[in-house]
Amino acid sequence: MTQARIGVLFFKRLWKLFGILFGNFTSRSALIFYSLTILSLLMQFVIYAAGLIPSKYFEVLGSKDYPGFQQLAIYSILVIVLNAVMKSSLNYVSRVLYLTWRKMLCSRLHDQYFSRINYYKLNVVNDNLDNIDQRITRDVDQFTKEWSLLMSRLVVIPFTIGYYSYQCFASTTWLGPVTIYVYFVVGTIINRLIMAPIVRLNVEQEVCEGDFRFQHLKVRVNSESIAFYQAGKTEHVKSEKRLNLLLKTLMSLYNWSFWLNSSVNIFDYVGGILSYLVIAVPIFGGDYDHLAPEEISSLISRNSFVCIYLIHSFSQLIDMSSTIGDIAAHTHRLGQLLEGFDVNTDERKEEFSDDGHKNESYSNVHQMLFDEPNTSKSRAALEKKVLDSIDGSSEAEFDNGSHTYFHLSNVTFSAPKQARNLVEHLTLTLKAGKNVLITGATGSGKTSLLRVLAGIWPSHSGSVKKFCDFGPKGVMYLPQKPMLTDGTLQDQIIYPRLDPYPEYSSDNDRDRMIGIVEEVGLTTLLENNGGFEGNFELNWADKLSPGEAQRLMFARLFYHYPDLAGQRGLLIDFIFVGNFLKL
Amino acid sequence: MTQARIGVLFFKRLWKLFGILFGNFTSRSALIFYSLTILSLLMQFVIYAAGLIPSKYFEVLGSKDYPGFQQLAIYSILVIVLNAVMKSSLNYVSRVLYLTWRKMLCSRLHDQYFSRINYYKLNVVNDNLDNIDQRITRDVDQFTKEWSLLMSRLVVIPFTIGYYSYQCFASTTWLGPVTIYVYFVVGTIINRLIMAPIVRLNVEQEVCEGDFRFQHLKVRVNSESIAFYQAGKTEHVKSEKRLNLLLKTLMSLYNWSFWLNSSVNIFDYVGGILSYLVIAVPIFGGDYDHLAPEEISSLISRNSFVCIYLIHSFSQLIDMSSTIGDIAAHTHRLGQLLEGFDVNTDERKEEFSDDGHKNESYSNVHQMLFDEPNTSKSRAALEKKVLDSIDGSSEAEFDNGSHTYFHLSNVTFSAPKQARNLVEHLTLTLKAGKNVLITGATGSGKTSLLRVLAGIWPSHSGSVKKFCDFGPKGVMYLPQKPMLTDGTLQDQIIYPRLDPYPEYSSDNDRDRMIGIVEEVGLTTLLENNGGFEGNFELNWADKLSPGEAQRLMFARLFYHYPDLAGQRGLLIDFIFVGNFLKL
Repeated sequence: MTQARIGVLFFKRLWKLFGILFGNFTSRSALIFYSLTILSLLMQFVIYAAGLIPSKYFEVLGSKDYPGFQQLAIYSILVIVLNAVMKSSLNYVSRVLYLTWRKMLCSRLHDQYFSRINYYKLNVVNDNLDNIDQRITRDVDQFTKEWSLLMSRLVVIPFTIGYYSYQCFASTTWLGPVTIYVYFVVGTIINRLIMAPIVRLNVEQEVCEGDFRFQHLKVRVNSESIAFYQAGKTEHVKSEKRLNLLLKTLMSLYNWSFWLNSSVNIFDYVGGILSYLVIAVPIFGGDYDHLAPEEISSLISRNSFVCIYLIHSFSQLIDMSSTIGDIAAHTHRLGQLLEGFDVNTDERKEEFSDDGHKNESYSNVHQMLFDEPNTSKSRAALEKKVLDSIDGSSEAEFDNGSHTYFHLSNVTFSAPKQARNLVEHLTLTLKAGKNVLITGATGSGKTSLLRVLAGIWPSHSGSVKKFCDFGPKGVMYLPQKPMLTDGTLQDQIIYPRLDPYPEYSSDNDRDRMIGIVEEVGLTTLLENNGGFEGNFELNWADKLSPGEAQRLMFARLFYHYPDLAGQRGLLIDFIFVGNFLKL
Repeated sequence: MTQARIGVLFFKRLWKLFGILFGNFTSRSALIFYSLTILSLLMQFVIYAAGLIPSKYFEVLGSKDYPGFQQLAIYSILVIVLNAVMKSSLNYVSRVLYLTWRKMLCSRLHDQYFSRINYYKLNVVNDNLDNIDQRITRDVDQFTKEWSLLMSRLVVIPFTIGYYSYQCFASTTWLGPVTIYVYFVVGTIINRLIMAPIVRLNVEQEVCEGDFRFQHLKVRVNSESIAFYQAGKTEHVKSEKRLNLLLKTLMSLYNWSFWLNSSVNIFDYVGGILSYLVIAVPIFGGDYDHLAPEEISSLISRNSFVCIYLIHSFSQLIDMSSTIGDIAAHTHRLGQLLEGFDVNTDERKEEFSDDGHKNESYSNVHQMLFDEPNTSKSRAALEKKVLDSIDGSSEAEFDNGSHTYFHLSNVTFSAPKQARNLVEHLTLTLKAGKNVLITGATGSGKTSLLRVLAGIWPSHSGSVKKFCDFGPKGVMYLPQKPMLTDGTLQDQIIYPRLDPYPEYSSDNDRDRMIGIVEEVGLTTLLENNGGFEGNFELNWADKLSPGEAQRLMFARLFYHYPDLAGQRGLLIDFIFVGNFLKL
């Protein structure tokens, strides 16, 4: 968890996030926010009216005022129903605000995340931000939810505390409000003191629970190895140890919680009768001697409501302060993400001016990677090897005609944040109709060369000239580990496109696809899944065997393979990197 | 989720689980349960006394009875504090009951899960029970927590409903209780009707939220492939689609929730003033004309408490009924697990009598696997191949001396639940000092032969005679995928033992271990982790590179490799199966 400090940085990040949430003063979210605030304030009047209803009943029932009772019965039903409906409306508007904000913030993050290859840079290359996916899903969710709840309260609470303090003062002079303030401060301090170890134990307990579950997950995943090792007894001891540690931590937590619960309960319940003790002083002092007994009952009841609501308002304030840690954490995590995007964008702008290549997308990674001198972190075991190229083109045979796809001249590169070069002074031209086989041991840099060609890794020196792009219209990539998307089988095959190519009539394209599926031997799979547009699967990895998944990758490749008679542009013969795959 | 039906099976399973939870009538958990029940009943008297306090204040303040007020102030503080402390105690005892139950149930499940190779059979071979690990961790947790909360309430609620109905009857005759019953029934029916679509939408919303997170997880995991495919735009569209579907579902949920909230709020608030309307009838009817106004106020206040508490008791009943679905689900899942253990144990008993082999642990799997004729499910692509053995021992050269470890005679086996035989009529003798190399393509059954030898898979026909066991004292297993345990580096090396061998003096063993670590080239790792008993890691997989993990597996093997001069018994030269590993 990011450390959740509240300082200048917190407010800077919050300000930036609020800029996204509100846009301008007449945006949809701003209008919803105004409605929420107005509704919250109006709500306070209805709550007040509803809170005084019991005291009115004491009056009319005590004095046996039948017409008064009839009027009050109707009035009270109306106020109560209004109160109930307004409360739900407030809740509803606050949820609408949450949804609006979540959409705005999430869409904005999506825009930046998917622009260029930020998703790759932030997740893989520049790994100082953890769990980007969770920031966009969970943190946005919680940040907007918390603020949609908090916003209207922040406006209303000062108002209610002021108003009910005044009401309490009107019945009991200074005695009531001061007693309640003192009572509240003392109670809060005591509860906080008891709570400190509970917070710690709660964290410990979660860790223990996680460890216990992890132990069982390991047994499940490794059950065959455990059976071969005959390690059942050892795992039994380990599982029991984790269980006992967990239960012991829970016991400590519950022991402390007993004291906290007692204290909180005493605080709540005594708060409930405090109003009677406070109102007793003016009553016995003779201040209300002019009132009839039923009017005194009414006064007691009204004062009781006022005092309890005042304590309730204070409690809300405390509840808010207890969520401040979460809010700060989410603010920082989202702020960091925005800054991560900005770094990439800024570098891009800077480099754009002094870099005249046709394709410069690789260079913007460069600076970002190397301005942190942390090279100690060892990524796998990458060793420098000389790359062999079968056609022996160590000389630059640079041809600017339409048949040259890539030209590398004197290129040197290393893995991001690694000091040792993977490849040094490589000069290589990739041309149409000329096959190049790149071989080398694991970790020698075969895939890395592909990364440099694709522009997702930077080169240290030398120049990379590209005359075609990666992607379905240029170099089609065959992943070493099948990369499955969600959707129908057709969606799998046409990926990374969302829709089939428009140039083909639907029937032609369908026939071509059927041919491809036959070619890679997946006809049965097609039949079992209701054809190309049949089953919509979220996770094909669960549905396909590894072999089938690999065949699908080839089907995808063949689908995008250019019909040379067509106008879909160039496509280099696909480049195999890494292990050759058996079909 | 297991379908949560409440029928005869539910009660049978519940009965069995309660048998484990309670043991006998004087067990620790039974005693805690008695205390909890008694405390819950006593608590009701204190709640009643506390509930009447406001009405007493109306009386003494209304009649300006100063000595009465002083007494009442002291009395009320005492009752309130007693109430608060008893409430926390009740909560505490209920948590202690939960911990006791969780320990009892979890330990019992551990005993059965780790006895023999149930963990392997239930997780891998017999895959009709999902998520065994979660049943032992989460389901036990929730089952015992739910019942520890429910138990005392089940005892108390009939009592409170009866008593408060009577009290209400005493103030208002039949009018009060009947009004409240009717009000409660009508309100509940209306709320249930509105709630039905909300339950459905809630499930939908969780699915959508999960899908959205899964989409982002896929982007994160596949970010390099996406970059190569240049599929950022496609993934952007897919992410936005998931987000919009989620937000749309949330909007529908919130629209419906508005009506439910309004209805619930109206129900709650009107319930709050219902007592005044009910008490008005006897007051205006003249039944209480003999009471002073302050006494009437006191009556109104008391009646208000009684009515609200009666409604509260009914609401608790409804809350309980809403958790019944969860409880049923957990009961079934745990019941199934217990039955899963029983099946294995029963089969073992049956087979034990008619099977006279020295080692029969393989045969008990046999029946379990094949009494379900479901052979359609295809496990990977296992093809029948003839196994080549270099020494060409196709004839049974069975030698019952101390140097024969395994003798297979005419053995035929298949993968569990598969019809096609992997290996047919294999006769093979494994002897000390004679090397056997088993080769074959992927899926030909090399590892499966090892499974048959270890007795974790059954053979269809033929006999498997074993003269040594799997485990550290017999055949030591080298896993294809490193199997790491938690603990220190020493714990890794001595696994599956928990402690180093006692025969060695500590120093000797340590020297041997240092030698082994040097041999496999992990000295640096040892230094970086504070020696053998330095860092305690929960998840070594995060800490080690795949190569280091594989070396550790060899260190483990070498550690258990028998010192032939020692008395630790036989150990077959380790058997490599599958891919040979590079050190």
